[in-house]
Amino acid sequence: MIKHIGIVGVSPEGAALFIRELSRQSHRIGGPNAQLRVSMHNEPLAGYLNAIRLGDWHGVAALLSKSAEVVAAAGAEVCVTPDHAVQYALHLAEHETPIPWRSMPEAVADAIAREGRSTVGLIGTRWVTAASTYQTHLGLRGIQVLSPDGDEAEDLDRIIVDELLKGEVRTSSREKVRQIIRNLEARGCEGIVLASSEAPLAVEPGSNGLSVYDAGSILAEAVVRDALSLAGRGEVAPPAA
Amino acid sequence: MIKHIGIVGVSPEGAALFIRELSRQSHRIGGPNAQLRVSMHNEPLAGYLNAIRLGDWHGVAALLSKSAEVVAAAGAEVCVTPDHAVQYALHLAEHETPIPWRSMPEAVADAIAREGRSTVGLIGTRWVTAASTYQTHLGLRGIQVLSPDGDEAEDLDRIIVDELLKGEVRTSSREKVRQIIRNLEARGCEGIVLASSEAPLAVEPGSNGLSVYDAGSILAEAVVRDALSLAGRGEVAPPAA
Repeated sequence: MIKHIGIVGVSPEGAALFIRELSRQSHRIGGPNAQLRVSMHNEPLAGYLNAIRLGDWHGVAALLSKSAEVVAAAGAEVCVTPDHAVQYALHLAEHETPIPWRSMPEAVADAIAREGRSTVGLIGTRWVTAASTYQTHLGLRGIQVLSPDGDEAEDLDRIIVDELLKGEVRTSSREKVRQIIRNLEARGCEGIVLASSEAPLAVEPGSNGLSVYDAGSILAEAVVRDALSLAGRGEVAPPAA
Repeated sequence: MIKHIGIVGVSPEGAALFIRELSRQSHRIGGPNAQLRVSMHNEPLAGYLNAIRLGDWHGVAALLSKSAEVVAAAGAEVCVTPDHAVQYALHLAEHETPIPWRSMPEAVADAIAREGRSTVGLIGTRWVTAASTYQTHLGLRGIQVLSPDGDEAEDLDRIIVDELLKGEVRTSSREKVRQIIRNLEARGCEGIVLASSEAPLAVEPGSNGLSVYDAGSILAEAVVRDALSLAGRGEVAPPAA
């Protein structure tokens, strides 16, 4: 079974972490027969950041659909983006994209609902923690979503934008994120959603008692499971020569 | 300045590490103006491994050039692969590829020669440590290349193929790699070349007194510097809309 996955990169750090997750989930779930064909296209991050800062979602959608067309032309059968801040524009981009998109917040909502959680906290930029990206999908399943409080939301935003997007993470920032997670737990969260594609750089799995829902990892697993369900319908592995 | 880099993925773990390095080097060297456009295509790893095991370099080249055509069609101006085992086939693939390839062993040889080293050791699979991939390029510059001894070469190969390619690394394996590096140092190596795209998973930078030459990082830096030298000739950043 080989399915061709298209990745629309936004933050290159996030795209790299997602490719790694896709490969690991493919090994974990499908073994050596679940080899995936992957294409990724990444328009420069600066263009996305400019458009997001202006609230220009049609501009974001134009960048997303440009990349989606590239991976579709390469043969991808489905496309995803592991980036959270651009999710608002996914539905706008869909109209321009010849292949289906798989939504990350929806995959995350499915995973959290399956485990019967009623309250979870968000770790992400202000573009996500102050927005309805997750509120909508999780709310529809009766799950309450808490965001870090004002100052903490600002700190978190700064850590992600100034450090993690550049692949850096200071020890003090790692401790700050730990404190933010502890405070979300004190407010009743049973789990934490890593709602930033670079968040795994700052949050070690199992470093808290809380369940950690790494959105990129959940999306990767969902995409691999979709691909596996097509076993036998798709292409077979190319001969060795 | 935006230049479009095409990445030919072989091991998805290695491709992910390379994309991250490309982004980090771009931030480090070029700052926010050096945003790159990146396309990556990855044919399934199993096809490569089958062909490499058969010594079928034309088969490897066919896979490489298939991916190179995909990224060239996406608009990439130069293409690279961060994978070491496939380097033999690069020259075969070049004939079929409409854009130039940049060779990783050559970038590594340049970097080591610049620092005036005379003897370095290789960390990689048997496909690399027992082969001329680095011997040729470094030998032409008067640099001696040492490989791990028989048993250690086998251990290293097993660690990379059975663990790192799947994104795993056992503590015992990490210690084993440290021991292999110590033995290379005892044989006179002034530096170690991480000649496996997944080696950074097992070798912490600065964990030894030796200089560590991470081939993926060196290739990423070389590609970013190439792109910067084209400043003004390339495309400008897209307007925020």
